[in-house]
Formats: sequence, C-alpha cells, structure tokens
Amino acid sequence: MLEKTSNKKLSDFLDRFGGALQARDIETAASLFHDDCYWRDLVIFTWNIKTMEGRDDIRDMLTNQLDVTKPLGWAIAEGEDAVETDGLLEGWIRFETEVARGFGHIRLKDGRIWTLLTTMVELKGHEEPAGSTRPLGIPDRPEKGGRTWKEERDAEAAELGHSKQPYCLIIGGGQGAIGLGARLKQLGVPTIIVEKNERAGDSWRKRYKSLCLHDPVWYDHMPYLPFPANWPVFSPKDKIGDWLEMYAKVMELNYWGSTEAKSAAYDEEKGEWTVLVDRAGEKITLRPKQLVFATGMASKPIVPNLPGRDLFKGDQHHSSRHPGPEGYAGKRAVVIGSNTSAHDICAALWAAGADVTMVQRSATHVVRSEPLTELATGVLYSERALAAGITTEKADLISASVPYRLMPEFQKPVYDKIRALDAGFYAALDQAGFLLDWGEDESGLFMKYMRRGSGYYIDVGASRMIIDGKIKLKVGQVDHLTEQSVVLADRTELPADLVVYATGYGSMNGWVADLVSNEVADRVGRVWGLGSGTAKDPGPWEGEPRNMWKPTQQPGLWFHGGNLHQSRHNSHFLALQLKARMEGIQTPVYGLQEVHHLS
Amino acid sequence: MLEKTSNKKLSDFLDRFGGALQARDIETAASLFHDDCYWRDLVIFTWNIKTMEGRDDIRDMLTNQLDVTKPLGWAIAEGEDAVETDGLLEGWIRFETEVARGFGHIRLKDGRIWTLLTTMVELKGHEEPAGSTRPLGIPDRPEKGGRTWKEERDAEAAELGHSKQPYCLIIGGGQGAIGLGARLKQLGVPTIIVEKNERAGDSWRKRYKSLCLHDPVWYDHMPYLPFPANWPVFSPKDKIGDWLEMYAKVMELNYWGSTEAKSAAYDEEKGEWTVLVDRAGEKITLRPKQLVFATGMASKPIVPNLPGRDLFKGDQHHSSRHPGPEGYAGKRAVVIGSNTSAHDICAALWAAGADVTMVQRSATHVVRSEPLTELATGVLYSERALAAGITTEKADLISASVPYRLMPEFQKPVYDKIRALDAGFYAALDQAGFLLDWGEDESGLFMKYMRRGSGYYIDVGASRMIIDGKIKLKVGQVDHLTEQSVVLADRTELPADLVVYATGYGSMNGWVADLVSNEVADRVGRVWGLGSGTAKDPGPWEGEPRNMWKPTQQPGLWFHGGNLHQSRHNSHFLALQLKARMEGIQTPVYGLQEVHHLS
Repeated sequence: MLEKTSNKKLSDFLDRFGGALQARDIETAASLFHDDCYWRDLVIFTWNIKTMEGRDDIRDMLTNQLDVTKPLGWAIAEGEDAVETDGLLEGWIRFETEVARGFGHIRLKDGRIWTLLTTMVELKGHEEPAGSTRPLGIPDRPEKGGRTWKEERDAEAAELGHSKQPYCLIIGGGQGAIGLGARLKQLGVPTIIVEKNERAGDSWRKRYKSLCLHDPVWYDHMPYLPFPANWPVFSPKDKIGDWLEMYAKVMELNYWGSTEAKSAAYDEEKGEWTVLVDRAGEKITLRPKQLVFATGMASKPIVPNLPGRDLFKGDQHHSSRHPGPEGYAGKRAVVIGSNTSAHDICAALWAAGADVTMVQRSATHVVRSEPLTELATGVLYSERALAAGITTEKADLISASVPYRLMPEFQKPVYDKIRALDAGFYAALDQAGFLLDWGEDESGLFMKYMRRGSGYYIDVGASRMIIDGKIKLKVGQVDHLTEQSVVLADRTELPADLVVYATGYGSMNGWVADLVSNEVADRVGRVWGLGSGTAKDPGPWEGEPRNMWKPTQQPGLWFHGGNLHQSRHNSHFLALQLKARMEGIQTPVYGLQEVHHLS
Repeated sequence: MLEKTSNKKLSDFLDRFGGALQARDIETAASLFHDDCYWRDLVIFTWNIKTMEGRDDIRDMLTNQLDVTKPLGWAIAEGEDAVETDGLLEGWIRFETEVARGFGHIRLKDGRIWTLLTTMVELKGHEEPAGSTRPLGIPDRPEKGGRTWKEERDAEAAELGHSKQPYCLIIGGGQGAIGLGARLKQLGVPTIIVEKNERAGDSWRKRYKSLCLHDPVWYDHMPYLPFPANWPVFSPKDKIGDWLEMYAKVMELNYWGSTEAKSAAYDEEKGEWTVLVDRAGEKITLRPKQLVFATGMASKPIVPNLPGRDLFKGDQHHSSRHPGPEGYAGKRAVVIGSNTSAHDICAALWAAGADVTMVQRSATHVVRSEPLTELATGVLYSERALAAGITTEKADLISASVPYRLMPEFQKPVYDKIRALDAGFYAALDQAGFLLDWGEDESGLFMKYMRRGSGYYIDVGASRMIIDGKIKLKVGQVDHLTEQSVVLADRTELPADLVVYATGYGSMNGWVADLVSNEVADRVGRVWGLGSGTAKDPGPWEGEPRNMWKPTQQPGLWFHGGNLHQSRHNSHFLALQLKARMEGIQTPVYGLQEVHHLS
C-alpha cells in the first residue's frame, strides 16, 4: 500500500519532468529541481561524464543538449518500487533518447529533485548479443567454404593490425584494458590491446609476492564473468593474474603481449593515430581512430632525486620494481614511504627475516581491512548485500548515484564509526609514533583515493608489526644517502643494504608525454583527482575525476583505469562512447573539461 | 491463499512421513506411498544412486538403511511453495540425516507419494567453503615463514604424487574429470587428474573441426563457474577446449597433461591402488585409495573387422581419429555409420569439396536442433526457463526427480510434437531413402542416449544435405573392402579414397580391462544403459545407468562421465561419496548393482 503511494508519487513526478523535457520547456524542467541539486550524467545526455551542480548548470546543459537528446518515456524501472524515508523519495528509473536506452536513479526532497543519475544502457540498434540474443555458435547451414569458430578467430587474429586496422588501440594490458576490451568485443569494435609483458596478468604476477587485492571480491568482478563463489575474499596477485589471462582468452580479445608502444602521433585531418609498436621484435605501424591509455592510474613511478643516490652501494628501487623479500634475510632494509606498498613490502621483508625500518614522511590514513570491508564496501558489495538483492550492477549504480560534491558527507560517518570501533588500535599506532590522519575533512579512505590516489593503508597486518616494533618506524624527511645508509633531516643515520622508494606515482598524462609529445600531454593535462583543493588535489572543483573515461582536450585520446570496481563500471560508458563514434552516431560533448594543471 | 492450502497439505504430509521415519515405523512410512510409487535416492539414504520401485523395494531399503540414516526435519524447502495441479501435489523439500543435509522433491497422488527424490546436499562438518565462508586469501597476520597463495599452490603441485599421495586419481581429463576435480578440490580431497593429451581441452581440440556441442549452453555449465551470457548457444569445440583449460587452472586442479596410465592393481588388504603412470617420459607410481575412470562414456572406439581392411589403399580411420576434411577436397569419401559423428563428418567433407557417401546400416533417430532445443532441453534449460526462475541447479533436480521407469512416458509427447511439427522434413528424409526411427517405444532421443548412447543425430544441417543429395546415401551392410572401394552386401561398389568408421564405441569397462585386468573388467561388468530390454540395452531392468557415479563391484573403482549436464549434476554426488570415504564416515551401500553383462 505504502509502496503504491510512493510509486504513484514518483510516477506523477516523472510524468511532469518527462513532459517538460519533451516540450523542451527548460524552465519548468529546471524548476522541478531543488535549490540544492545535482544531475550526474553518464554519457546519455552529455556524451561526457559530468555532474551538473545547481539549477544554472542544469539549465545550461539542457539548453545545449536537449534538442539532440530528445528524451522520453520516463518511468519507474520495471520490477522496482519507489521508496520513501524521512521525506526522501527515491527510485530507479528508465527512459530513452533518440539513440539510446537509459537507466537512472532519482532522489526527491520536498517533492523536487535533489540528485538525479542518468546513464546510458545501450545504443539502439547496437545492443550487445547476450542471453537470448547470444550467437548460435554454428552456422545455420554448413556451407562450402564456411569457416569454423576457430578459423574465424585465427583469421581475425592474423588480419587485425596487419591487413585490417583496429578502430581502437588500448595501451597497457591490465585489468582495466582487459575489461574494456571485453566490452568493445561485445560491441563489435575491432580492438587491439598492447602490453609490454609477455602474458596477460603479468603486471600482477611481477609485483612483490605478498600482494593481494585490498578490496574484497564482491567489489572486484570483471564484466560478464563474475568470480565464482569459492574465490577468496582478497585475491592473491598470482591468482588474479591467472584469472585475467584466462579472461582475455575466453573473451577472445586481440591481446598482444610482449608488445611495446614506441610512439604515437595524431593526424587531425584524418582523425587517426599512427602508432608504432614493437611486437616481440617486429615493428608494426597501427592506425587506430581511438587511442586509450590504460597504463594504470598509479603506474608512472616517482623516485625522489635524493642526494647521494648514486653513492649508495646497496640495492635501491622503486616499490613497483621491488622483487620481493627473497635474498634480504638478515639484511637491513629501509623503506621510504608509509602508504600501501610501503606497508606490504615492510611486512614481507620482516617475515623473510630482514631488519626493516619504515620512514614515514607525512601522516597516513590507516584503516583495518575488517571494519572497512564490513562498514564501507560491505554495505553494497558483500554476501549480505547480495542477499538483500543488491547485485554488483545495482551496487555500481548506487555508488554512481551520489555526486562527488556530496560524497564526503556520505563517507564521514563510516570513518567516525571505524575510529570509535578501533580506538585501541589507533591509540597503539599513535603510541608507536605513527602519524595518523583521516583526510583533511576526515572523510576517510575513498575520498583520499578519489582526490589523490594515495595517502592511505588498508591494514592487513603490517600496522600490528609497527605497534609491536617488528617493523621499526622513523618519522621525518630523508636528507641524503651515503654509501651504506639513509640519513634523515634530523641526522638520524639508518644503515641500509636495501632502500625501497615507496614514493608513489605521477599523473597518467606522463605516459602521453613519453609516447606522443609533451605538447599533447600538456593539452590534456593532469589525470585523476576531483579538484577538491585538498593536499595533492588542487582546485578548481571539477566534480568528476579529471580526464577519466570521457573525452579529453585531445580528440581520439582517452584514459581508462581505476580499481576493479571503477574499471568494470566505467568501461561500460567508455565502450559506448567509442562504439557511438565508430558508428557515426552524433556525439555532441557537453562541458568538455578545461585544463588547470599540467601534471 | 491457494498456495497456503497446498503448503499446509504438504507440510502435514511431511510431518506424518517424517514422524513415521523418526519412529522407525517402516510399515506406516511405506503405507504413505501410492501403489504406483518410486523413491529415487542420490546417496543420502542408500550411499548409492538407486531408484526403489514399489512399496516392497522401499520397505526393504528402509529396513536396511533407516537405523543408520536417522532422517529428521522434513519440511518444505525455504522459499518454496507446494503446487497442486490436477490432483497432483508437488514441492521441494528439505530434511537432514545424522551426517548430512538433504534436499529433494515430492509428488503426491491422491494424498500418497507417487515419486520421491532425496539427494545429499552436503556432509555436516564438511561444507564447501563458498560465499560467506569462502577463504580469506591472505593470512590474517603475515608471519615469519608464512606462505603466499602461489607458494602454497606450487608446493602442493610439487608434492602431490611424489612425497604426498593423492586420495583420488582420475583417469582421463575431459570435462567430466575437470568438473569432478573442481568439486573434490572444494571438498579438500587431494586429487590428481591424468590426461594423455598435453593440455586440458585437447580432447575437444583434436576432434574434427566442425564439431560443436549439440546441447545448448544452458544445459552445459560446469560446476561453480557458469558460462557468461555472451557464450554461444552451441559451443564450438575449440572454444570449449579453451574454457576447460582455463577452468582447470583457475580451479587450481592438479592436472597432469601428457600423462598416460599404464597399469593399475588394487590391494584389497590396504584398500589402495598402485597405478603406474608415464608423465611426459617420467615413470611415476601413484597410490590412491580411489580410482575414477573418466575416460568418456563413448571413447573406446569400435572398428568393425571388415574383410579387406588390410587391402584398402586409401586412408581409413575411426571417426574419433578423423583429422577433419582438409586434404580430402576432390577425393571420394565413404563414411560408414549414420549417427552424430557420421553426419558431422559427412557435412564437413562435403563443405571442403569431397565426394561423400554415407552408408546407413540401420535406422537412425533424427531430430532437428531447433525444435529439440525449444521443446525438449529448452523447457528446463533456456533463457525462458531462467526467466521463470528455473536455475541450472533447479533444472538438474527437476530432471532428477523423474524416475527412469517413468521417463519414456514423460518424453514421448515431446517427440510426438516434433514429428508433427517437422512432418515435411521427415517426409523429405524418408523420400531420400534415409531410414528413420524414434526409439523402439517412440520415446525419442534422450531415452536412446540413456539406454545405448547411440542411434541418433541432432540435425544441424547435414540432413538437409542428404535430402538435397549433396551427401549421397546408401542403405545396407558393408560386405568387404577392396584396394580402392567399399563393397556393400548388395554388391554395390563405392569407390573410395577415404573410409571413415563412424561405428561407435564400446563399454567403458573396456578401459578397465586395458588398465587393470580382464578379471576386474568382468567383475564390474557393462557400463551405461538402463537394462531397458531395447536394442543394445539388454535387460534385466536396472533403474539407473549401470556403474555410473556410484559404487561398483570393485571396491575403490568408479566411473564418471556423461554429457555436460550429467557430469555437472552427478559429479556432486560422486564427490560426496569419495569425501565421506576419505573422512571415514560410515557409508553402508544399499543395493549394490549386480552384473548381468560383461560388456
């Protein structure tokens, strides 16, 4: 009964809203938004990933896009009910545009829109073959010269990049590239993925041996093929490596291992890239229309240029090059940095019998894995969530429905709870001299990740080792290295056989500088971060991660990546943007992001 | 309201039935069965796969098993409703025994049991870790000497079969072995799979190139990891090969490729096998407690000993060795046989430009793939079924709920419908001289498969080629071969460059004769078939497939296989039987099958 009333309310509202849009009555449509309002659009209105904040933004977007978008058919989504709690009426909605089908989420406050999420589900006439529309697998009639599945596959693999050009080239072959590749395959977009390592999954296999995903399995599914129910909560690196390798194979991706992209240049007139790659020694020129960097949101190592680095006689390397603890038993290791890699590497070195010192240069946000999984990710991604009907897809859309501007206030209570719950743990870490923080506005881990992609550790055991003094801790800046030690600003000398620089990564447009040119890298500017004006995320406010999964200032150049959840979710929208361009569908981009920072 | 009445009726009945069993009141329990009654038990009561037919059988089983089984807690399964139609009350039920949890299905006619299915879900205290009980993936605390996932996996692979003996050895590494291996892994039963071919999936890859599964994808899922929604309806052989290879890897099976079992002997006293294997040239002796033949229900080729075979100068081989049509363009091919392989091979040879004649020696049952998928498998295994809430697991149990004695009458109407629907097609085949049949009692394809595993073709195009005369057809027996022809009993001479013997396969205990001894092969007797008394399935009536997935007359010797549906479903019950034995749980087998036929 209650549901029916809520449904009626929301349906009536959608009728009014849809009616105003259909009548191109932008003023009425805008008036249906609350003073405090957000419209987050994933591709379907803006051909961009964009949050409009406030009525003026919304009015401007509609003025630009409404005539092309032609939305209609706004209704509560099939099988869903509107829910009303504390004056907030929310529900899942569907609609369509001239070229696509849409799905979204709406929250009404006092009868007007507080938040609206609109997403593109599929392009009309280009629906993915799956379920009842999956391919048959055999030709209807075996005909003379008819090719088998394997012959087709082999021919495609032999031709693509040689006699046929890929429409899309993805640089980097990690989970982001592979998931995007699967979606593009489904959409019939000819794509090649080039990866420096020999096999898919090697970028995981080659990391330090104790590495596991710090996000739980329910958060990490790849598109189309979820992990089985016996998959561990936190995937060990080699296991995820093997999964990615088989995934690339069963999804029939054109995955070029042992292949390095050497240079890329864009021909504005032809709208085409010329990319020179080295495939296991063979030089090949590829001419894709679209170039996607999926080189890892955190993959361009930063090694601080410390005085004395050239003098140091022991081993030294960036955390991304750390081979693991073997060979360091009984040795003295100094790990510079105090984020995730630093903690993981310290723990593994200690377990292998090394003498380990962590150098903490600034405060770090630490959250134990258990409460994080329980109270943060677990709300949407867990067995509990699944039992409550929150599928992975639903969870992704619920996450997407919260505009970044509001996210800190959604996040803060979670971390307040964790801080209270783990008070003893934090007191002990503090006692051990470890500098803790919770983000500038105390909004915790996810916001730190979205703003700067660094500054935290999800504790899976190393914090206890610091508390217990197994991992020694020094707080301070590094002044210089000597032949056999690391010297801190306070003159403390740390004798060392090994120095690990767990000092983080630079912006992904650094890869563009390497491959294309400094000019193009500067044209697209900094990648990642929201413009929050907090440490390492300078303003102005962007409202969405910079340059990710959406058009950039360089035509035909895209960035893809993020954690497994983000890659899974956003690869859908990036794939649709690429497909639409391939099909020549009109894709007028609204609000292309301006560049305020070069790196 | 109606549901509630039905639920009440069934609940009341289950209370009475459960009460009688709990009171060990066998007479009362038996009286709750209809005169015409069947109790099919998968392991949980009988530690066997057994159908009791009639009250006497049921009384006898209960007299033997009830005291050990100690069933209780009979109720309608959670989330299920009883359904009443035309006086038939049916529903899903749950119960437990002293050592296990059970699930089942019941059909009441006139208030008494017509059919009862009881199955073992899991052994108490040995539940599979999955979902919320899945492994964590990382040690809670990284400790000195703690091993990573990969180190554990590598150690297991290095030790098993060398310093540690497997509890179970599976001979043959096709889909049956791989699915069973996955279940045993989940249950913590140390297992090695030995496979002659180099890689998992090779037994598919090496077949003739046009081979596709003739069962649709919904019927074919492997345990734990269903095919994704973009998987083709009919899997091409190489694609299924790749899937099996990755599946064996991600399920972390100890899969020994390039390994041939040379001999096996059972030590009755020790209850242990000594199996000599050759692993890529290395001789290794394995000492498993349990030996499973998963060599393929149809894998021991029968080549008829035709006069003149040694004279024939062209190529000749059994269908299982047929390399594909390459190299036979413009050649004359004679394919002896008219079942599935014969049709597939003829079609591919014709498409490659060969001159092809099929020799049909006896009537064949032909059903076009479309109506079969639609009207037979599709009822339980399809997008339509999924939309109606019939999951794969549910579909398997619905299939299992029909006792084999009743199955022909469940099947017949389907084929009556197909015959009417495709009347034109059958008339044309008949016109072309093709001998058609529908099984001796007209019960169609699935019964032929269960009884004799042969005698049919699911048409995916070859029948049309016969109708059109592209594939030439000769009906009759082969008399002999000459240097360059096949001569039929009626003296027709068929000039030939190639002869393919699509002449079928022998019983799986032939593999036991090869590997163990003729004595043991004879002790276990014929494998497969129901004892229906129809062609190639001599009586007496067995009620269940002979020797499959259940204890045999040879302790420690098991057979596993069947199509993908059967392997998936029955591997669960075979795995539980093996696990129980490993754990020393009492497993008193009721009604061990007697041997009536040696092959």
